[in-house]
Amino acid sequence: MRQKKAISDAVIERLPLYYRDLLLLQDAGIDIISSEKLGERLGITPEQIRKDLTCFGAFGKKGVGYYVSELSQQIVEIIGLEQHWKIAIAGIGHLGWALANYKTFGRLGFRTTGLFDVDHRIIGQNVGGIVVTPTSEMSEIIRREDIQIGIITTPASVAQQVADQMVEGGIRGIFSFVPLRLSVPDRIFVFREDLSIGLSRISYYLTNKARE
Amino acid sequence: MRQKKAISDAVIERLPLYYRDLLLLQDAGIDIISSEKLGERLGITPEQIRKDLTCFGAFGKKGVGYYVSELSQQIVEIIGLEQHWKIAIAGIGHLGWALANYKTFGRLGFRTTGLFDVDHRIIGQNVGGIVVTPTSEMSEIIRREDIQIGIITTPASVAQQVADQMVEGGIRGIFSFVPLRLSVPDRIFVFREDLSIGLSRISYYLTNKARE
Repeated sequence: MRQKKAISDAVIERLPLYYRDLLLLQDAGIDIISSEKLGERLGITPEQIRKDLTCFGAFGKKGVGYYVSELSQQIVEIIGLEQHWKIAIAGIGHLGWALANYKTFGRLGFRTTGLFDVDHRIIGQNVGGIVVTPTSEMSEIIRREDIQIGIITTPASVAQQVADQMVEGGIRGIFSFVPLRLSVPDRIFVFREDLSIGLSRISYYLTNKARE
Repeated sequence: MRQKKAISDAVIERLPLYYRDLLLLQDAGIDIISSEKLGERLGITPEQIRKDLTCFGAFGKKGVGYYVSELSQQIVEIIGLEQHWKIAIAGIGHLGWALANYKTFGRLGFRTTGLFDVDHRIIGQNVGGIVVTPTSEMSEIIRREDIQIGIITTPASVAQQVADQMVEGGIRGIFSFVPLRLSVPDRIFVFREDLSIGLSRISYYLTNKARE
């Protein structure tokens, strides 16, 4: 299903949550689910779910619910997960290691294909089935393996250099955990993750709740 | 400064980004910054920055810019960072280890006070200056140390039990990395982080850009 209309970022961010839960429902042999039940499982209101899914033309069956496999297939197509994007992770410290073993990436169809580091104690180690390779070989491997998405979990001081090497290899999107704006050509889509945002949200909530 | 009006989640999520950059500017001895310069540093449009900051009454000085220390202090108060919230992390695998060493938490005023695990190979280890303690002692330590926020990075299978122990200790907010809805009393604010959302956003962007 091709989209004419852009879908809002907030909806795009909820789709993977729906999708992951739909896969669990499929595994459990459940064919149909109501927005109420799905909402209960996810902690999202049924109204929000209906609104989100209407955005891309999934209407379900009135009084019955959504067909699980049909809906999950629609979400796969919207997000583009049928591409089975190949991923490279640069910086195999604790965070990179955790991401290399993060099962949800695989569940969503992403395939971790290359792991890169500069530390000789880490190079050669097998992490989640993949051997860590020197970062100096990264551009070449990205090009050869046609890896489309790079994840950067290196120290901030080398992140720009790593991004440059990814771009040189032909990467199309970068998922960065570095608290730094990366300078890349316009054609490359960069998504910056900030793990402190959740804590700030909690702090804001607790503070303003206390002020009420 | 007390808020009458609720600020949108999107603004709340950008405030820590502004704050962190303002701290860097302060360190560099810069007193005043324009929305254009701040936007350039952060990859956010100056219009968005002005709109966000107007939300809480920070207007800056026309034609000059924002006073760095005044603005950062305002953000501290809005988010409630002056509380210096104490944090406990349960589950010191690679992700928990990375978070225990995540410098931005400290920069924002959060104080990691307790680290907990059930694995005897990890208990007793010093991670970022804190010794990992058995999870069985967590409720008691949360209560004694008055820890207000808990981070859960355990396997999903034990996450509910860990959340229960946090609640028992008197936690007020939970930052969960577990792909599971936690059942907690209404008074507890739960923020669920999903590390796959960034990848899905990139996939959506690359797919829909290709379709254009």
